[in-house]
Amino acid sequence: MSSHPVHPESTTRAPLDASRLKVEKNPKAGTPPPPEQLVFGQTFTDHMLVVPWTAEGGWGEPKIQAYSPLSLQPSSIIFHYAPSLFEGLKAYKNPKGEVRLFRPDMNAARMNRSAERISLPTFDGDELVKLLKKLVEIDANWVPEKEGYSLYLRPTLIGTQPSLGVGETKEALLFVIMSPVGPYYSSVVKPVALEANPERVRAWPGGTGDAKLGANYGPCILPQREAAKKGYQQNLWLFGDEHYLTEVGTMNLFVVLKNDDGSYEVVTPPLNGMILPGVTRDSVLGLLRAHESGQSPLSNLPKIHVSEREIKMQELQDAAAQGKLVEVFGAGTAAVISPVDRIGYQGKDIHVPVTSSGFGPVAEVMLNTLSAIQWGKVEHPWSVPVSK
Amino acid sequence: MSSHPVHPESTTRAPLDASRLKVEKNPKAGTPPPPEQLVFGQTFTDHMLVVPWTAEGGWGEPKIQAYSPLSLQPSSIIFHYAPSLFEGLKAYKNPKGEVRLFRPDMNAARMNRSAERISLPTFDGDELVKLLKKLVEIDANWVPEKEGYSLYLRPTLIGTQPSLGVGETKEALLFVIMSPVGPYYSSVVKPVALEANPERVRAWPGGTGDAKLGANYGPCILPQREAAKKGYQQNLWLFGDEHYLTEVGTMNLFVVLKNDDGSYEVVTPPLNGMILPGVTRDSVLGLLRAHESGQSPLSNLPKIHVSEREIKMQELQDAAAQGKLVEVFGAGTAAVISPVDRIGYQGKDIHVPVTSSGFGPVAEVMLNTLSAIQWGKVEHPWSVPVSK
Repeated sequence: MSSHPVHPESTTRAPLDASRLKVEKNPKAGTPPPPEQLVFGQTFTDHMLVVPWTAEGGWGEPKIQAYSPLSLQPSSIIFHYAPSLFEGLKAYKNPKGEVRLFRPDMNAARMNRSAERISLPTFDGDELVKLLKKLVEIDANWVPEKEGYSLYLRPTLIGTQPSLGVGETKEALLFVIMSPVGPYYSSVVKPVALEANPERVRAWPGGTGDAKLGANYGPCILPQREAAKKGYQQNLWLFGDEHYLTEVGTMNLFVVLKNDDGSYEVVTPPLNGMILPGVTRDSVLGLLRAHESGQSPLSNLPKIHVSEREIKMQELQDAAAQGKLVEVFGAGTAAVISPVDRIGYQGKDIHVPVTSSGFGPVAEVMLNTLSAIQWGKVEHPWSVPVSK
Repeated sequence: MSSHPVHPESTTRAPLDASRLKVEKNPKAGTPPPPEQLVFGQTFTDHMLVVPWTAEGGWGEPKIQAYSPLSLQPSSIIFHYAPSLFEGLKAYKNPKGEVRLFRPDMNAARMNRSAERISLPTFDGDELVKLLKKLVEIDANWVPEKEGYSLYLRPTLIGTQPSLGVGETKEALLFVIMSPVGPYYSSVVKPVALEANPERVRAWPGGTGDAKLGANYGPCILPQREAAKKGYQQNLWLFGDEHYLTEVGTMNLFVVLKNDDGSYEVVTPPLNGMILPGVTRDSVLGLLRAHESGQSPLSNLPKIHVSEREIKMQELQDAAAQGKLVEVFGAGTAAVISPVDRIGYQGKDIHVPVTSSGFGPVAEVMLNTLSAIQWGKVEHPWSVPVSK
């Protein structure tokens, strides 16, 4: 029996190299629609980035070209076995016209972890960030200037070889498309209602819930529609017989509990292999820990203890019944912070407090603090100008 | 809060209708390669079937056209969230030149169940079977004539709308491609060695393991490579703390145990939501139950009791230690029957008996009986001529 790997790594594979970038400008540049007409992920900019990969040669020449269809054989593996992963990040334009990305290094690093899990090729994340900056610079006129608006970047990596064998990736394509997006909330924040249905399970130990794979998203559409039919906007994903809380729709979950001394415990499930390591999750944790330690206190917040720990529905129910549930919110790139006002569970609704702003106290401070960083109103190492 | 479904079903959507088929012959018809050069899923026939679907209009006109690339926007949902499912079935040509499909109604029915789970459109399975027959008839010269060879059909259904929202399917494409394939075993049957690694989990309760979704396959590539590096060809997928056996690679699993009276118990895990309801699995169960009941006895087999029940690694280990493990085999469309001779588990190998033929006694009778039906050597309602 051979003990050799199926496909030993080639030593001659070319790395991803931003200095090899070729730019082919779109001769038919379009006009961005008025910001108020934007629908998430339906309008795309003039250009896209494409980088092919082969098992023999490694990464090919990166190319910025006109946004245009992909032509793939019907036997291409992407249509059959879901070898796909993606990222989402945003570019923001401040009143001075400066365009900034928010923590793009985090997306590049996670993209590589996703690639390892789904057997797609990895790359030097710094090179991808250079290419993202260049792409955003070229389509800078597509970054909306109004506060609350941004340009959503969608880096994607797919397996493409034209073969039905379930096996090692032989050909792949990295591409990045960009879509101008409006604020998730127009004038009034609408808290979301969640359905916590233990019959539908997003992720499992030994599965892929901690990687940003296409395969984790398609299966969530039906449960989301089931929840919508019952009047809930999103799923609250539970795990196990004890109904541990894990994530909210396509966001990470935060639960704020009040201690007897008036301080708050902010709880989010730990990165136990079933939780997507969200960039917004990490940012919220970072801001709250800097507040907790006194290193960078946030105004309008009491003493806080941050807990990455498991939390089950029973604890949430008990806290709500005892008046100790301060708030529940989701954190993700699309909405940044999304407050929750109701959770349907076992035939009843758990009511979650929200203030007159639509947010709970921690969610509101988090959204304001993150927004100020993202739009460059305050200088912060998380906010990276594209022109540097 | 609205209690309406997100997208109510349209009453005006057109059904899938084989009578609307348009055929556009490929002017550059190719020549099938010599059978001995065939590699699974790498060579495709002259034609393919395509049927578009939209949420507004339902199923469009089915079209048989030249095998050719698909052109899709880079924002097409198939590249992002894995809305995909597929089927695999085979057409066989007997010495009289008759071409037959094996239980295509089962594939059409499963395809609909998969579509419901992944929120893709469903259809009348009989109409798909009519279209499959027509496609095979048109490319009948591609069905290899040698016994052991066949034409593999790959019906596929993907979501295609150009939008990054995670939500209801608005556009989809059903397509069928076909690939001539050689026998899974050339001259000598090679039993496979399996790695049973409880750290890698294929499916779970509340997940999608019982649907034939692309999303179930991509995540299995890494575990398969890990097993290969240790000298095992496939994964034996376990579930739960008690290490229940579930499936083998991309096949269903059968374990044959010897009772004290010399009779056999043939065990396969039940359809508990984590097991793919395989057509070959169902066929093996049907043949063995007809033997068990005396309705249609098989020669060369002792008294058999068929059990759809859970079985854990401890029971398999004990049976092997006590000389009661007769054989283990996988059942699926590609290999039909695949014997197992070794299972790596917790740092040790469990050795599984195989006879000099490479098979165990039940596996060999199953392969021969199924092959005789598939090639039309015996008349059986499972074998469906394409010209009727």
